[in-house]
Amino acid sequence: MQFSNAFPDRLAAQVRATGSAVCVGLDPRRQQLPAGLQPAASASPREWASRYRTFCCGVIDAVAGQVPIVKPQAAFFEQLGPAGMEALHHVIQHALQADLLVVLDGKRNDIGSTAEAYADAYLGRGGLSIWGSDSLTVSPYLGADSLDPFIQCCDERQAGIFVLVKTSNPGGGFLQDRLSHAGSADEGSVYQAVAELIKQQNASRCGTSGYGPIGAVVGATYPDQLADLRRRMPNAWILIPGFGAQGGGAEDVAAGFDEHGLGAIVNSSRHLIFAHQRPPFQQRFGAPRWQEAVAAATAEMNAQLRSVVGGS
Amino acid sequence: MQFSNAFPDRLAAQVRATGSAVCVGLDPRRQQLPAGLQPAASASPREWASRYRTFCCGVIDAVAGQVPIVKPQAAFFEQLGPAGMEALHHVIQHALQADLLVVLDGKRNDIGSTAEAYADAYLGRGGLSIWGSDSLTVSPYLGADSLDPFIQCCDERQAGIFVLVKTSNPGGGFLQDRLSHAGSADEGSVYQAVAELIKQQNASRCGTSGYGPIGAVVGATYPDQLADLRRRMPNAWILIPGFGAQGGGAEDVAAGFDEHGLGAIVNSSRHLIFAHQRPPFQQRFGAPRWQEAVAAATAEMNAQLRSVVGGS
Repeated sequence: MQFSNAFPDRLAAQVRATGSAVCVGLDPRRQQLPAGLQPAASASPREWASRYRTFCCGVIDAVAGQVPIVKPQAAFFEQLGPAGMEALHHVIQHALQADLLVVLDGKRNDIGSTAEAYADAYLGRGGLSIWGSDSLTVSPYLGADSLDPFIQCCDERQAGIFVLVKTSNPGGGFLQDRLSHAGSADEGSVYQAVAELIKQQNASRCGTSGYGPIGAVVGATYPDQLADLRRRMPNAWILIPGFGAQGGGAEDVAAGFDEHGLGAIVNSSRHLIFAHQRPPFQQRFGAPRWQEAVAAATAEMNAQLRSVVGGS
Repeated sequence: MQFSNAFPDRLAAQVRATGSAVCVGLDPRRQQLPAGLQPAASASPREWASRYRTFCCGVIDAVAGQVPIVKPQAAFFEQLGPAGMEALHHVIQHALQADLLVVLDGKRNDIGSTAEAYADAYLGRGGLSIWGSDSLTVSPYLGADSLDPFIQCCDERQAGIFVLVKTSNPGGGFLQDRLSHAGSADEGSVYQAVAELIKQQNASRCGTSGYGPIGAVVGATYPDQLADLRRRMPNAWILIPGFGAQGGGAEDVAAGFDEHGLGAIVNSSRHLIFAHQRPPFQQRFGAPRWQEAVAAATAEMNAQLRSVVGGS
């Protein structure tokens, strides 16, 4: 299969090239950094940001070539203020240089020209946007028109978005599972309505991979809904969080893939990047060799996914 | 009435002290900056950020004492990358020093410890958080449990949030107006479910003003829903965007207030901060006296609101 330069096709090519559907979540958490990277208790935000940068770049170096994509979590960088944002920018650039795709997890959205500003800020590498990420997670609560500026930006810059559809947390169903109706006509659940919108918007935008630029976030913790959503959005990449620390396993995510082993990427954050803290990696490597632990945990997750995912 | 130091009470005290329910939206947009603040076409993001900072601080100086609160829009600062985030940080500090409350418009949310990171990043002044804002706009799509870390942080730091309920854009109804049911039981619309959650969470948290820390965003462009939501959430501050440039007028927002003239703040951004570009302020002041135009437009909006809002 020949892939174009559009984001969904680049993602397919990277999955093929690496033989991996793993997305490595870059969630630097102060308390969990390897011992050698923990600064003094009195460290300034700038010092912490420097450690986050070193740590995340180290993770990237450990997984480059093994996985198609990484997902920095904006919140942890924002927590360190402007210095954290500088570190985030550096981490994204480092990932791009390591030939990884980047999905920034910011769950942004707004309306009209403000949504345009978010899209312009984050979507597009190679100088097209200032943060330079290939894709961004986006919340749908503001409605279909709030997604349009992001979709237009995807069209113009060969970028992508992942819209929250069915999230992995226990309370995600509060709005997402709500069954809706228009008069006597059953309209399915809220998350199904978002899925239908994604499918429609992708219909005229599919690349040679068969997928469009508008992906969906569907948690590993709801395997039945994942299978349902795979059927409802045959043209949408699914970003599946909740693997590992949140409880999802390889069998839970299998239904997210198509018959060629494409169509889904499975995110794991803590389980991979802090592998030096969990057995058996803790015993094998310990804190000083934390990068080897990251690489080994990622290889293990790759093997777990390959055991359940078909593909050619 | 004696007000406590909790955010909803501080907001009530500021509304009383200024005699104003206007929230000034700080949405710096490149093309609309006053002529004297426009840098060269080739200006770097850092130069643009410096202009944003000068402009927003100038707006703050023009409205300090006239209004209770300002609302920086994160997207426009994020659009300038790390330099923009530094400018945002400075603008927030400048507003606090000018004795204004700050609601950062970031429409953030996530789950679990990631939501904790956002709350820790943004909520709380006086060194309690690094960005130092009094409150933050938050999206509810991820469900009730995703709001808990923000609410807990509000409790600990005398801070507030404003949850998106019914937004001002034409397509906001795509999810928000969806009528839901559980079996044969009608559960109202999605936005009404969010409103009910806010009311419940505020019930045990109301300050001396009668309001709790969890506010609601309800657009000025839907006056009937605004009246409905005022009744459904008698203990929630309502942040009303959509006044002015988006088409809402003073009559449209009147139903957001309680009988004491409290309970709502009305945001206007472009209409106030770029008043030098619209009649009659353009003629009276022009670009060089843009700060006077901001002050005059704010005074006009204050008068418009006072003409329709009761209060003691």
